[in-house]
Formats: sequence, C-alpha cells, structure tokens
Amino acid sequence: MSRDEPSSVDLRVGPELLVRTVAGVPTIEVGDDLFEVIASSLERAEIALADGDVIVVASKIVSRAEGCFVDLGSIVPSDAAHELGGELLKDPRLVELILRESVGISRKTSGALIVRHRLGFISANAGIDSSNAAPSNAPKGSGPWVLTLPRDPDASAALLRSKLCERYSSEVAVLVTDSWGRPFRRGTVGFALGVAGLPAVWDRRGAIDRHGRVLQATESAVADSVAAAADLVAGQANEGRPLTLVRGLHFKASHDSAAVLLRDPEDDLYA
Amino acid sequence: MSRDEPSSVDLRVGPELLVRTVAGVPTIEVGDDLFEVIASSLERAEIALADGDVIVVASKIVSRAEGCFVDLGSIVPSDAAHELGGELLKDPRLVELILRESVGISRKTSGALIVRHRLGFISANAGIDSSNAAPSNAPKGSGPWVLTLPRDPDASAALLRSKLCERYSSEVAVLVTDSWGRPFRRGTVGFALGVAGLPAVWDRRGAIDRHGRVLQATESAVADSVAAAADLVAGQANEGRPLTLVRGLHFKASHDSAAVLLRDPEDDLYA
Repeated sequence: MSRDEPSSVDLRVGPELLVRTVAGVPTIEVGDDLFEVIASSLERAEIALADGDVIVVASKIVSRAEGCFVDLGSIVPSDAAHELGGELLKDPRLVELILRESVGISRKTSGALIVRHRLGFISANAGIDSSNAAPSNAPKGSGPWVLTLPRDPDASAALLRSKLCERYSSEVAVLVTDSWGRPFRRGTVGFALGVAGLPAVWDRRGAIDRHGRVLQATESAVADSVAAAADLVAGQANEGRPLTLVRGLHFKASHDSAAVLLRDPEDDLYA
Repeated sequence: MSRDEPSSVDLRVGPELLVRTVAGVPTIEVGDDLFEVIASSLERAEIALADGDVIVVASKIVSRAEGCFVDLGSIVPSDAAHELGGELLKDPRLVELILRESVGISRKTSGALIVRHRLGFISANAGIDSSNAAPSNAPKGSGPWVLTLPRDPDASAALLRSKLCERYSSEVAVLVTDSWGRPFRRGTVGFALGVAGLPAVWDRRGAIDRHGRVLQATESAVADSVAAAADLVAGQANEGRPLTLVRGLHFKASHDSAAVLLRDPEDDLYA
C-alpha cells in the first residue's frame, strides 16, 4: 500500500479504471425483473462480476420497471399549479406533478422549476423525464406521458446488489444514477441517486499529505464521480446504454446511502 | 455508427473508457517544463498517445511550474480583508489574496468564502490551495505558503496539447482540472478549468430519441465528466497522481475553452 492510500481509508482507486457499457439491455417494461435483465446482459457480454466492480444503472430503467409512468392527461392541477404554470410558462399538469414529488421550491424562473425532491435532492423538475417516457402499452390518445424518479433508489440499488453479490459470489456495488444540470456550470453530469455497497463519500480527514501535514478538505464524492464517469459512456441515450460497469475500485462494503451525499439544508449556502 | 451517435455529433464515447494514472511524475518546481515532464512520464509508463486520448493535468502542478506560490507573510491585508477575516474567522492575509484573485463574492459564512474567480468560475477560496503548497526552496521562517490557480489554464492546456500532438503525431486533448465542492451535495468532484481540443459541452440538441422525437435537455458537460472520472483515480493525492490518461473518446478537435462550461451569470439562478 503506497503513501497515497493510508490504511485507515477503506477505498483505493486505480491505478486503472475501466468504464464499460454493458450492451444489449432491452427496453424495460413495467414489472420487468431488473436483476434478471442485468444478469442476462452481463452474461451475453461475457462479463463475470468480481470484487470491487460497480454496476451503474440509469434511474430511468428502474423507474420504467417500477411503472413510474404518469399520464399528464389524468392529472388535475391545483389552483397553485395553475398559477405557477402560468407564471413559468409550463404545463400546469406537469407543475402539479413536480409539486407532488417535492417538499419545497428552491428556484423558479421562466421554464425552470428547481425543487427539493422528496428524496432530498435538489433537481430541476423533480427529475421528471419527458423524453422516451411512454409505456409500450400506452392506450392510443393517452398522454403525454412522463416518468418520475424511482420510488426508493437506495432500496433498488440494495436489492440489485444483494442479488448480484450472490450470483457472482463477489462483493460488488450498485449505483442508481441520473444526468442533471447544476448551478454555475453548463451541461449535465451524472449524479448518484441510489447507493449500495460503495462508500458514497470518501472521508480522508486525518490522512497525511506528503509534507506530513494533515489534509484539510478531504471529502471526495466517490459515488458522484463514478456516476459522472459512467454517464460519459451512457451519454444522453440513457435507454440505449442504461448499464455501465466500472472496474478498478477497491473498497470494503459500505452502508452509505445516497443521503450521505446531501448537504444538510441548514448548512447549504445555495439551497 | 449506431443510432445512439447521430452523425451530426462530433463526439462519441466508448463503448469502453480507460482512466489510467500516469505514474512517476516528480514533484514539480517553479520553472519546470511541464511538457517535458509529461512526455518523460508517458515514456517511462510506456504510453504512446493516440488520436482521441485525453491527458488530464491537475491544476496544482501547472500552478507549481508557473510559480503561483504566495507567502502569506508578505501580504498586507486591506481594511476590508481585515473586517471580512474577522467576520469569517479566516486569516485576513488569505482573505486579501482571495479578494485579489476574484471579481465578486458569491456567498460568505463562517469559514467559507465563495467567490467568482477572475477566470469566471465560482469556487471556495478562489481555488487557493493551502496544503502541500510551499516551494521546495522556501526560505526558513517564510510562509505560510499557499498556491493560487494557474494564470490561464486554457492557454496552459493549449500549449501542452500542441506539443503533445506534435510529439505523438496525434490529435489528443488536454484538460487542466481541480477538485472542488459544489452546492447541495457533499464531497469534491473534478472540474475542468482549462480545455484544449476536447468539446467542453456536448450539444446534442436536435438529436433524435428512440421514439423519433427530438431530444430536449441534451447538453452534456463532457469536459467536467472527464475531469470527474480522472479525479477519481487522482484522488486527493493530487501531487502524487497529478497526471491521468483517459482513452476511449472519439472527437473532432474542438476550439472550446473552459469558458464554454460557465453559465452566463445573468442566467444563473444560484450565483
């Protein structure tokens, strides 16, 4: 173990990381068993998972399997949603759904409604996806359809992880991720919404720098960094490439949930 | 070319991405020729760069080579820096330096001073680094020393890129990156401060989803995602692992600078 990796740290990365699309995932329908789909895709790709592998799953396919489709035609907006929709030039039915998925509004402007999701994340439109969002059996004339975030991404990640660990007799990790925008900077990057097995934040406080001084700002957002790397190969084509293998991390199984990645709202200078 | 990659898009990623530490980079001293250091390190690692390779350089070694060391003992704080330092419980000499490096304050709270850097980024403490920050020839009794961000990370990236392209007769890209915190979420991730050759933002507006509809939110922050992936293997030990090779992107040389990644302050809901 080199000086860069004190033994008190339960994570080591590299020196080489492989980020690989697991091809051939079919379009997921409501009720599909995601574990079976993932295991079959891995098998077809001739990938045998091993200790330290991280399987990154686009939240969209978790939502599809869970049936998180909503027909906006079925939504009756409240007066508040009508008013806000008029103000923001947004469909009041979508605004109503965003408000139902959220616990508070962070920012609003023409076209953008940024909220704190019930799961704790700050995200535009509560992470609701309007593209590729119809179930395959949608009745003619229904919709427009949208897709909400999975009900409990940590639980979904944990369930997949437990089955994958068993199938491969290995300590693997699972992330459920999405592509979101962020303050200050243009473009989307990957974020971890569900975490199982991987340390979400790598706390190196107490580690020593090369001059023998204790490191100061040393919390690394490992799960978000892995999500960003996977998003790069998944691209925007989340349905086409919703499954990514990240190989090259070495970690002790962690109990971190995605909530570990969230700043306490009271300490957040921007929320 | 698959459906996921319309021909109008000048970038393709994967299906496999390799993120690899280039080992053996020595401690950089003021005046070192970074290109020679990088070329030697690549040679020792038996890496020959090829079209599409991205070399990710931690901003810290660019700063060190440029001599961006500041002896806080030499700084005479203004009255404003004294006042702000008292309010934030921060060394007024460091506050003075942060203000000199910045064009405006975004947020301030006890311990944290978040500013818009003269280069346009929003960052804590203007990206000034207080760890591992002394030059090796610092006189006894001098300091404490800190290290500011490179003077012009885009220009540094462009110069390195041009020399690497020539040396390897290949179209490569160079990023200069740093690890920063962000709103809403705990932990640091990698960000691109200097970009040369790589499309910084991948604009897929106009691309078609699998149902034949035009994609909506389709700007992917490619350079930041690559920076995040590289940061994962570089870890906090930026001086020990300041050089990363990312292989598996396919792109036409772009003229994007890191400024492409910055939201217009007037449109930024959080700045």
